[in-house]
Amino acid sequence: MKLKINRFLKRTAIVIVFSVMQNTVAQGHPSLVLTKKGVTEIRAKLGKVPLFDTSLAEAKTEVDAEIALGIITPIPKDFSGGYTHERHKKNFLIIQKAGVLYQILNDKKYAVYVRDMLLAYAKLYPTLPLHPQERSYARGKLFWQALNDSNWLVYTSQAYDCVYDFISVADRETIEKDLFKPFADFISIGSPQFFDRVHNHSTWGNVAVGMIALVMDDAELLDRALNGLKENGLPAGMKDNDGGLIKKPGQKTGFLANVNEPFSPDGYYTEGPYYQRYAMYPFMVFAEALQNTKPDVKIFEYKNGILIKAVYALLHLTNAAGEFFPLNDGQKGMSYYSRELVSAVDIAYLYGGKDASLLSIAEKQGRVQLDNSGMAVALAIKKGLAKPFEKKSIDLSDGPEGKDGGVAIIRNKNEGSELTLVMKYAAQGLSHGHFDKLSFSYYNNSSEVLQDYGLARFVNIEQKGGGNYLKENTTWAKQTIAHNTIIQNETSHFGADFETGNQFSSKKYLYDVSNPKVQIISATEDNAYPGTKMHRTMVVLQDEGYEKPLLLDIFQIDSDKANQYDLPFYYQGQMMSSNFTYQTPKTLEPLGKAYGYQHLWKEGIGKATTENTKISWLDNGVFYSLTSATQPTDELLFVGLGANDPSFNLRRDPGFIIRKKNSQKATFVNVIETHGSYNPVTEVATNAFSLIDKIEVVYEDANYIGVTIKNKERKSILFILATNNNSTTKKHQIKIKDTTYTWVGTHYKTIN
Amino acid sequence: MKLKINRFLKRTAIVIVFSVMQNTVAQGHPSLVLTKKGVTEIRAKLGKVPLFDTSLAEAKTEVDAEIALGIITPIPKDFSGGYTHERHKKNFLIIQKAGVLYQILNDKKYAVYVRDMLLAYAKLYPTLPLHPQERSYARGKLFWQALNDSNWLVYTSQAYDCVYDFISVADRETIEKDLFKPFADFISIGSPQFFDRVHNHSTWGNVAVGMIALVMDDAELLDRALNGLKENGLPAGMKDNDGGLIKKPGQKTGFLANVNEPFSPDGYYTEGPYYQRYAMYPFMVFAEALQNTKPDVKIFEYKNGILIKAVYALLHLTNAAGEFFPLNDGQKGMSYYSRELVSAVDIAYLYGGKDASLLSIAEKQGRVQLDNSGMAVALAIKKGLAKPFEKKSIDLSDGPEGKDGGVAIIRNKNEGSELTLVMKYAAQGLSHGHFDKLSFSYYNNSSEVLQDYGLARFVNIEQKGGGNYLKENTTWAKQTIAHNTIIQNETSHFGADFETGNQFSSKKYLYDVSNPKVQIISATEDNAYPGTKMHRTMVVLQDEGYEKPLLLDIFQIDSDKANQYDLPFYYQGQMMSSNFTYQTPKTLEPLGKAYGYQHLWKEGIGKATTENTKISWLDNGVFYSLTSATQPTDELLFVGLGANDPSFNLRRDPGFIIRKKNSQKATFVNVIETHGSYNPVTEVATNAFSLIDKIEVVYEDANYIGVTIKNKERKSILFILATNNNSTTKKHQIKIKDTTYTWVGTHYKTIN
Repeated sequence: MKLKINRFLKRTAIVIVFSVMQNTVAQGHPSLVLTKKGVTEIRAKLGKVPLFDTSLAEAKTEVDAEIALGIITPIPKDFSGGYTHERHKKNFLIIQKAGVLYQILNDKKYAVYVRDMLLAYAKLYPTLPLHPQERSYARGKLFWQALNDSNWLVYTSQAYDCVYDFISVADRETIEKDLFKPFADFISIGSPQFFDRVHNHSTWGNVAVGMIALVMDDAELLDRALNGLKENGLPAGMKDNDGGLIKKPGQKTGFLANVNEPFSPDGYYTEGPYYQRYAMYPFMVFAEALQNTKPDVKIFEYKNGILIKAVYALLHLTNAAGEFFPLNDGQKGMSYYSRELVSAVDIAYLYGGKDASLLSIAEKQGRVQLDNSGMAVALAIKKGLAKPFEKKSIDLSDGPEGKDGGVAIIRNKNEGSELTLVMKYAAQGLSHGHFDKLSFSYYNNSSEVLQDYGLARFVNIEQKGGGNYLKENTTWAKQTIAHNTIIQNETSHFGADFETGNQFSSKKYLYDVSNPKVQIISATEDNAYPGTKMHRTMVVLQDEGYEKPLLLDIFQIDSDKANQYDLPFYYQGQMMSSNFTYQTPKTLEPLGKAYGYQHLWKEGIGKATTENTKISWLDNGVFYSLTSATQPTDELLFVGLGANDPSFNLRRDPGFIIRKKNSQKATFVNVIETHGSYNPVTEVATNAFSLIDKIEVVYEDANYIGVTIKNKERKSILFILATNNNSTTKKHQIKIKDTTYTWVGTHYKTIN
Repeated sequence: MKLKINRFLKRTAIVIVFSVMQNTVAQGHPSLVLTKKGVTEIRAKLGKVPLFDTSLAEAKTEVDAEIALGIITPIPKDFSGGYTHERHKKNFLIIQKAGVLYQILNDKKYAVYVRDMLLAYAKLYPTLPLHPQERSYARGKLFWQALNDSNWLVYTSQAYDCVYDFISVADRETIEKDLFKPFADFISIGSPQFFDRVHNHSTWGNVAVGMIALVMDDAELLDRALNGLKENGLPAGMKDNDGGLIKKPGQKTGFLANVNEPFSPDGYYTEGPYYQRYAMYPFMVFAEALQNTKPDVKIFEYKNGILIKAVYALLHLTNAAGEFFPLNDGQKGMSYYSRELVSAVDIAYLYGGKDASLLSIAEKQGRVQLDNSGMAVALAIKKGLAKPFEKKSIDLSDGPEGKDGGVAIIRNKNEGSELTLVMKYAAQGLSHGHFDKLSFSYYNNSSEVLQDYGLARFVNIEQKGGGNYLKENTTWAKQTIAHNTIIQNETSHFGADFETGNQFSSKKYLYDVSNPKVQIISATEDNAYPGTKMHRTMVVLQDEGYEKPLLLDIFQIDSDKANQYDLPFYYQGQMMSSNFTYQTPKTLEPLGKAYGYQHLWKEGIGKATTENTKISWLDNGVFYSLTSATQPTDELLFVGLGANDPSFNLRRDPGFIIRKKNSQKATFVNVIETHGSYNPVTEVATNAFSLIDKIEVVYEDANYIGVTIKNKERKSILFILATNNNSTTKKHQIKIKDTTYTWVGTHYKTIN
């Protein structure tokens, strides 16, 4: 081993081998993401591992083009999307790659580029005041947010590590003294409200400081990164500019706290998949660096291997196209094709037991990280080891102990279509959380059947509020009415108050997918509206009387006073038909005045006149029908998004609302059918009509609810749920219309 | 030759060889689409020509499944989309294939199926009254329209031809006497208002009668098919239920008239590509049958080979995904992947000179017609003869003599994107025409940048008005305001009166694509509004100062009185920014009361305050900007479709309208920029801003207009058009701001 290293060392210019710190494996640079040993191995395999080679070639093309442009470090001025922001962002992405190219290709020009870039920043940085854009609660210097400064340092540290030995001692001194040390101090001690919290922001900050600490062998900085500030001097109750609380009293901070707290034991990150994806890069890349430099920390085993579990959780939190479910603040379209997930999947493969199913994701991604983990993945793929990554139904708990509710994903695959229910009964989700207790979204492959709106932001598009969160994110996207769940008295859950919402989570009542034809998630929420208990049960029900599985949605609500309850369904595509009469106003008015209601136009107003209300729509060549067991007093509303939206920041999406007025108790029973198809080329419509003849609540008391779903051929599905006892061994017996039903466990299903 | 046929004949059961009629090639059955010789050749090549074999296998799978279901011929009852309609439609599609399978596979079960189906229809047909649905101007018996009955006969004739020799003489007598003869009489003599006109409907009727005439060797029927009725007894001025005139006085009818009149010499079919596609099947399949049975007619040479030209015209009338431009009544998504185009491309290949570029279309289609033409195509593809079908800029004249305006398609391909301008300056387009003189649509690959709404109909979706044209097709889709062209005084062109519109067409002023960087279409319209002259010039302008070509749109209008002029732009996607102030009303009102204005909500109202008005939007990951040389008196309107749409029949699409009030003369100069990109996975926005600093009308008189387009770097494009002399040899000289410009030809372009 020693011999091998020595042989390799002869090929590099200057080598300094020293112990980085106590308990650290003796090694020189690079040692974070690339290691000396890893580089040797990679070099030996160049040209023989296709996926690695193409990823390397892509990086080379990209970096070469930037080197040709020269070093550009403009005076910071713009918001995200603007020139100076995008330029500095590109710089850090490129020099990280340039550092790697120097190591792998052993071509000095890349080291020169990184060195010169770092020297340019070392010259610029000491001259910089706070960034001129004042919107952030924690402004940076290169960027408008300390967050983006931290992004910069996470990548730049890697570049520095790669060229450390190449740079002269004098230049290193300049770079560390004028750039890295003040930079690390500024984003930590200088920005405690940013650094010293549990949040994706602080994760970036902690990792940035930690990465540069490892390169510079700075034990004090590393301790700060891992364990937070000793003293932060922040006032209690301080909030960030998204309205998020900076720090709960007594909360631990630093990287380890950020691993410990926001992840549930199942690997779900409380902010939601969009931010989990964003934070996954610093989590995983720092973990890799720690593993390479301080294996004794056993970071990948921390909290029962939570970081590896988190990667799996993220992969499960995607639709058939690999796009993350846009829970809480989430931009639609973000997917496991992002660079963060390429990195995360590769690292999870190498450090998480070489699970062959991860290779199929990497194959789809079509590129690998340019390090040992990427080489391991590319090599395994070349050897044909990849196995399919099977996304099955999964229930992901939320909260550090897994006790703060969760997110259930129920999937049913049949004949080329994958129906996916995403039911959210989680905690608030920190500052990026939405007031959407017991909400759900529903997918047919990658098509949204009933959507979660996601965020109201055009990330990095400067025209739209500097690419930042728009006002409508607060006034619409976070509000309850923007979600497929119940709103009481036109007021959002917890009155849309973050602190209140942050104290509570919904509770799981039942998750049972043991029968693939009757997959159930059931959860309760007692705090969104004080005095009101909500219980939602959703069943993905496969029955041969129907072409595709049905989604049965039973929403029971019980309050200590009479209220108005609204249950919206945000369908997509074109309304086809409805079975009730409604008026369409000659002039459109907003549905309400606040809590997001001010953003909906009231396009149609009807009354449920029959026992069942039915609407059908067509989207992406598939028909859908919603059948609802309504009462004649129920109001039915067709709504369209876009009111009070002076800057056209919202999409013009449609919705349908079932409204029950002046009710203390109420039960909403809805069934969503997926049926038929339409092809504009053949112009053939198949199974364009709902097959459901009638749905009926045949039994309801404090302990049970029984629902029947009849199809046109008069076959009837009966589903009974014990609503007050979720024991799987309890015996039940009830009588419905002269028939006695007995069963063991939480629910009963039969067909007559 | 004779020997070969005799050898082949030994393999079939009963053979009757006779002369079908005068000047007919002596042959038996099949002789229409399949021929005896063709079948022999096909059988010899089975299993050796992949594309043919897979097409055959697909047909076999489909037909076998239907044979397993048995013969089902329900009593006609439903509209399109309904059960009986779809069942009878499926029957004719399937027995045509079954007939072919019998011939190619020589398997009796297919012949039995066809015979039994025909006998079932022979039993049913004499019992049928008119179809119970009364909406059509020409009701059928099996279907609600004689049109669909004709579809049935076109396909069924082919099936009968294939199994003719298999069926006993007695059964043939029954089938002809009880089914085919009365059927042919009913759709012709019995439905003169349908049969005896120039229209896609009558084309189907003529071909249906002609096809069965060829099979039954009925010279009188064939003459009726080719030349129309001798006497039809129709009242003058009669209209169909789309408001289309049945017949102009003195107009010839029959198949030959239907070839002669609606096609321009360039092969453009005046109804538009959607109906051209629909009519192409009967045109081509009957032409093939005539060529096989009566080669002396030389149908493929008729009117300078118009039928073959028409196939090429259709292929050019598609976007990058092969979807037809939805001019006039056209359903979006219909494409050259339709069965009609598979047939048309195959026939055009075999009978139109074996153009190798058609093979690449057939390759994309992935299937061939199961006859000689399909075998020829599949064989040529197997031999690797396919060449790319290059869609270039093309100007397609309209009208039987090519003198009734036209449709210009200007394409510019660069770096993976194909920008396509479709400018319509055609005739009315018969009953399916829209009031959209000088309108245009604009594509980026297959994405609509500025859309043509298409039709307001959900073809074959029963819930939506029986799958037929919806009221909103008349009140919205046909109206001028539904298009990207000028509307005077909120009244559609020709007052939306079909007879008036039908008398006129726009006129070409200039079409010049000789310089690929300055491609021009310019046309005038003097009749849409009596007393008002309109002249629109559109230039696809490629300039290195811009990432992608610009679309320059100069719309000059000159009236004998002051009017209000509205120019809408129906963009797609999300509005990003605008450079003027506007109000967004608290309640929405329709933009107007009639001519389609009643369907638009007035979402924003502003005034042009600067010299240039600019809006930018994002669609499908690309940014677009419209810059307009506006006056401070111009009104700017953001509109949204969906008002007065009680059944949700319209899409909720956005639009932007530039309004000039109280103007006698007016000039609208607009430039549409395509720029940058946004990717939700990388979250990188590139070139998100318009590069145009200013556009200006620097010169305008009765003979010239000069426009400059300046970009941010102050480079300026000057474009001068001679608006009153389209000679390409004329010398011009004008002085603009102290500079004298001289040139030869219609236009001048320079960069300063």
